[in-house]
Amino acid sequence: MTHTIREKAKLLARVRRIRGQVEAIERALESEAGCEKVMHLIASTRAAMAGLMAEVLEDHVRVHLVDPEKYPDALNPDGVGQLLDVIRTYLK
Amino acid sequence: MTHTIREKAKLLARVRRIRGQVEAIERALESEAGCEKVMHLIASTRAAMAGLMAEVLEDHVRVHLVDPEKYPDALNPDGVGQLLDVIRTYLK
Amino acid sequence: MTHTIREKAKLLARVRRIRGQVEAIERALESEAGCEKVMHLIASTRAAMAGLMAEVLEDHVRVHLVDPEKYPDALNPDGVGQLLDVIRTYLK
Amino acid sequence: MTHTIREKAKLLARVRRIRGQVEAIERALESEAGCEKVMHLIASTRAAMAGLMAEVLEDHVRVHLVDPEKYPDALNPDGVGQLLDVIRTYLK
Repeated sequence: MTHTIREKAKLLARVRRIRGQVEAIERALESEAGCEKVMHLIASTRAAMAGLMAEVLEDHVRVHLVDPEKYPDALNPDGVGQLLDVIRTYLK
Repeated sequence: MTHTIREKAKLLARVRRIRGQVEAIERALESEAGCEKVMHLIASTRAAMAGLMAEVLEDHVRVHLVDPEKYPDALNPDGVGQLLDVIRTYLK
Repeated sequence: MTHTIREKAKLLARVRRIRGQVEAIERALESEAGCEKVMHLIASTRAAMAGLMAEVLEDHVRVHLVDPEKYPDALNPDGVGQLLDVIRTYLK
Repeated sequence: MTHTIREKAKLLARVRRIRGQVEAIERALESEAGCEKVMHLIASTRAAMAGLMAEVLEDHVRVHLVDPEKYPDALNPDGVGQLLDVIRTYLK
């Protein structure tokens, strides 16, 4: 995932926040917190996972669909933008 | 959506099936069918919509991200395959 | 789906709007509209389907999980509210 | 979330597996694993989160919508089953 080198710090920060959210679900269950709280924690962790996937997909589209060195101008920005818009709609 | 010319018949057939499914929901509501039937009809129509979107997205990725005439070999098949796998996972 | 008698007109109006959206997708494909427009139409139709399902589910929870005549006070409003909140989160 | 006492061990085991999956994503990013692996790990973690939510929702429906002590027979098993079927469809 070569493009994560540039993005690595950003993606790692996201994953660590998600780990923290999962640990919060664990604590809520251990402390027998109310159902509402547990469901809310799970829903927000799911949203964070969707955000992580959207970011990784975006990197993938920008770097792995076309070799940027070999074909610097091949990717159509509008086409990429439309694709990412739809992906984000579904990854909420 | 130039690439639909090649895909047009296939996509139109899908959309017409979906229209038929929506009309089936309409009839079920008009005839006061049971909740289970209505929910089942909606869930299967939703799945058909997801299939339609996955197909349009695939066409979009193969034809609109890179000009196939100008850059015939630019798209990385593995990269495209990985992207479409993830998209289908989320579009179920 | 006895509860749709009360809700029938409202649900039918929703389904007819969705049929109109599906017909718009059909016209867009027939007229070879741009990919962006087709994907946008599909995404908004999907959102409308999710709204329809959320409404049917809400009716189902309020009317079919407990016999309102036999157990008028059995349903816990907070519990129902929490359930519907989560359902709506997932049915976006 | 009183009902988790009975379910607590089962839910905690699920959450701990999910934590392990998130840690695997973290390691994959740290070791600059390929995009395909990272996307696959995220997708399977998302599925595990959906499974966790489905289980918590099921507990919630069975225990929190109706007071089982006060109204032991009020919940309609068919109605509950239909609801949970739809929820699982959307929580894949």
